[in-house]
Amino acid sequence: MSNDIYRTYQLQPPAHLNDIKTTVICPATEKHVKKYLLQETYLVEETGEDYRTITLPYIQSQSFSVQWVYNILEKKAEAERIVYEDPDQDVGFVLLPDFKWDQKQLDNLYLIAIVHRRDIKSLRDLTDMHLLLLSNIRKKGEENILKRYGLAASKLRVYLHYQPSYYHLHVHFTALSYEAPGCGVERAHLLSDVIQNIQMDSQYYQSRSLSFPLRADDNLLSKFKEAGKL
Amino acid sequence: MSNDIYRTYQLQPPAHLNDIKTTVICPATEKHVKKYLLQETYLVEETGEDYRTITLPYIQSQSFSVQWVYNILEKKAEAERIVYEDPDQDVGFVLLPDFKWDQKQLDNLYLIAIVHRRDIKSLRDLTDMHLLLLSNIRKKGEENILKRYGLAASKLRVYLHYQPSYYHLHVHFTALSYEAPGCGVERAHLLSDVIQNIQMDSQYYQSRSLSFPLRADDNLLSKFKEAGKL
Repeated sequence: MSNDIYRTYQLQPPAHLNDIKTTVICPATEKHVKKYLLQETYLVEETGEDYRTITLPYIQSQSFSVQWVYNILEKKAEAERIVYEDPDQDVGFVLLPDFKWDQKQLDNLYLIAIVHRRDIKSLRDLTDMHLLLLSNIRKKGEENILKRYGLAASKLRVYLHYQPSYYHLHVHFTALSYEAPGCGVERAHLLSDVIQNIQMDSQYYQSRSLSFPLRADDNLLSKFKEAGKL
Repeated sequence: MSNDIYRTYQLQPPAHLNDIKTTVICPATEKHVKKYLLQETYLVEETGEDYRTITLPYIQSQSFSVQWVYNILEKKAEAERIVYEDPDQDVGFVLLPDFKWDQKQLDNLYLIAIVHRRDIKSLRDLTDMHLLLLSNIRKKGEENILKRYGLAASKLRVYLHYQPSYYHLHVHFTALSYEAPGCGVERAHLLSDVIQNIQMDSQYYQSRSLSFPLRADDNLLSKFKEAGKL
């Protein structure tokens, strides 16, 4: 290929420049194997109506336990890991390091803000009733990460997942330099965008089509297929 | 390293399994060299006003060459690489593989749709005047990727960058399974979201604050700093 100043070639690097770091797990359980198996994913485009008729009934039928979240909020577990808390029951939250972060360096900083309110499942529940909560999380989350870790707001990516991995509202704070799993545009929603969208239209997240990836073995994907939506 | 069931090794693959696709840029400007150096990045939040007073004057003052884009549109270069073309001068575009994709497997499929119109610099210029163009790119881009590569729309991530790396409107089509560079929420905007946002408010992308990362050595970052915006 050749165009203007650009040309492409195939190269073969010499062996000594070409070490590959390999991890061997032996013996491996079924669970290990599954973790590393490439799972096909599908992008689903969920309308507001799809949420109410497919996703919401599915979430409710599963009654996923979030007891571990309540344990954190009630200081029955991980109390010593909490970096900051705003105890207000309406706009308050707990900020703590995500399990994926070893806290050894800032390059892959990863914290989670978990709200005290227990009535917000996900992005889909947010309206202008929650603007104070969302602004509070952004402001105090950023302030306290700066205070504790010296990392400024301009070095952070602050976002929600949709679908989330558990249905109790939480916000991700990751180092901008870190390509965190799940920070792709198909799953992440910047908190700053969420706030602006709700300011413009309180029903933004009830009325909009939202796209998200689902793994082939996810039961929610089967529900969408059954409904003829994929 | 050895710990319980885990062990790490250094491997060297045989040469024939180890082609590296290389792009040579010659002559390269200072800007090309910078693009490939590891750099600190900062998240900038650009209001609509910031765009008009800081970013737009900067883009205009730089007069970045997009001659290579015009070469493609005029079939003066890469004509044999074109996968699909809609020649309409208003809603048409050219679809071709991105340089980063070697076209050997679908896992990292990466195509770019480049519009024929030459008057749209980026997301910031889009209004309801461009809805037909955007829908056309989505529909025909997806149809032709299915036809040519057998990959369905549900396996694709279709998005724009803001800031883009060149100011002539183009849309990225990447395999959903591929964590393509630049598909993070801080830079990518799903085409499906862009279309919905403009349908809701024609001025959405002129009035909204948009966040994006800038490298420490990017002159646009200096402009934001000089304006006291960072």
